[in-house]
Amino acid sequence: MGPRWKGKGSEAKALADPMSEIVSQLQSSLIQLDSHGLLSGCSVLLGAETEQTDFLNRACFGRPIITTEKDKQWFQLGMEEAFYLCYSIKCLKIIGEDQCTKSNEELWNYMKSKEDTFPEYFKAYSHLRNKNWVVRSGSQYGVDFVAYRHHPALVHSEYAVLVLSGDGNANGRLKVWSDFQCTLRLCGSVAKTLLVLNVYRNNIGDVSPSCLEAYSVDERTITRWSPEQCREDQKTIENGAKK
Amino acid sequence: MGPRWKGKGSEAKALADPMSEIVSQLQSSLIQLDSHGLLSGCSVLLGAETEQTDFLNRACFGRPIITTEKDKQWFQLGMEEAFYLCYSIKCLKIIGEDQCTKSNEELWNYMKSKEDTFPEYFKAYSHLRNKNWVVRSGSQYGVDFVAYRHHPALVHSEYAVLVLSGDGNANGRLKVWSDFQCTLRLCGSVAKTLLVLNVYRNNIGDVSPSCLEAYSVDERTITRWSPEQCREDQKTIENGAKK
Repeated sequence: MGPRWKGKGSEAKALADPMSEIVSQLQSSLIQLDSHGLLSGCSVLLGAETEQTDFLNRACFGRPIITTEKDKQWFQLGMEEAFYLCYSIKCLKIIGEDQCTKSNEELWNYMKSKEDTFPEYFKAYSHLRNKNWVVRSGSQYGVDFVAYRHHPALVHSEYAVLVLSGDGNANGRLKVWSDFQCTLRLCGSVAKTLLVLNVYRNNIGDVSPSCLEAYSVDERTITRWSPEQCREDQKTIENGAKK
Repeated sequence: MGPRWKGKGSEAKALADPMSEIVSQLQSSLIQLDSHGLLSGCSVLLGAETEQTDFLNRACFGRPIITTEKDKQWFQLGMEEAFYLCYSIKCLKIIGEDQCTKSNEELWNYMKSKEDTFPEYFKAYSHLRNKNWVVRSGSQYGVDFVAYRHHPALVHSEYAVLVLSGDGNANGRLKVWSDFQCTLRLCGSVAKTLLVLNVYRNNIGDVSPSCLEAYSVDERTITRWSPEQCREDQKTIENGAKK
């Protein structure tokens, strides 16, 4: 299953305007204005000027929120998004409730305390973002993330992503057949491919974000096996799981 | 969400021909011919005469299988179906591989050995069958069973059924939000209501099928909460879970 572009010309538009460049532009713009986000529960709030608003929208970070402020557009960033901007591409500083800028270690510990599985989820999120996929919440489809080849205005999401912990401290998905069947059936009905990312900690622990470098990610797409597509006379045989 | 009948006249047909009576007729017919099924792995094979074939089809027990035999139609019964005919409505005897008729206790132990969760699944299956629901496998939708108000030729299945063990030795479904979201989204897209049957063993154990009488079943349907349907001026307020 390839990308499903939204209407004519979308593919050309996407090719002419690579996501990697959009993210670079966002990065430069955030650095230039010395941007600071405000930690608020499981979100980070970021007040953006016009230029940044445009880049945040185009790079698909955060959700714009409606306020009465005229000059600033506020964005609500999820934990993975905020930590990616802060730690991975180093263009955002984050201020805690004590008005102090948080160090990477402090943020890491804070986010872990909010969500046990944050290290795995962040590894998966950054793994896909580093490959220039646009990554958004998958809650609408009962998965952890959905991944788009480019901006959701141009293309439908291609992958429904489940993040599993390869070392066993898993989030509990896909352990029984009925869950598998349910997930595959749903992915089929919304024309997405199920992508399972197994994140292995490799006995490294999670005391600091530098542990992330040693984590590994195993990618598997899972599709239904269709006998009709697997006749001997066909050149390629697609099987249940492929890398 | 009510029943979705298949075409005109289906509801009238179903009303004129209650499922309870069809099952009674099947029961009489099987008793009259002293029917015996053959245990084979996780299935029971039953060779049926013309009259019984008709009743089995109308009551929706088993799947007809294609053989070269002209006089007999063979049916493959699932474990819950076979044990229901044998133990609950006492119209089928089951022969093991040793050519001996199995007692209820022997069958119970055999089926438990094939599937740990057999006691809970059977309790759920018989609970619905006793209320005259037609119960079939739900594997197509990633659930344990689907329940029909009458024969699948007349009506779409109304409930997607998940069987959970109330005492904790669960089958692992619905433990994380993403599984919940996935299951609810799928149920919505196929116009079924999610019915969760929690089966409680009540510290009774499972040494013999007579334990079943002491098990209890808690029924919950789960639907998405829609703010639009929950305004104050409405008479009934549907909430997340109702009995």
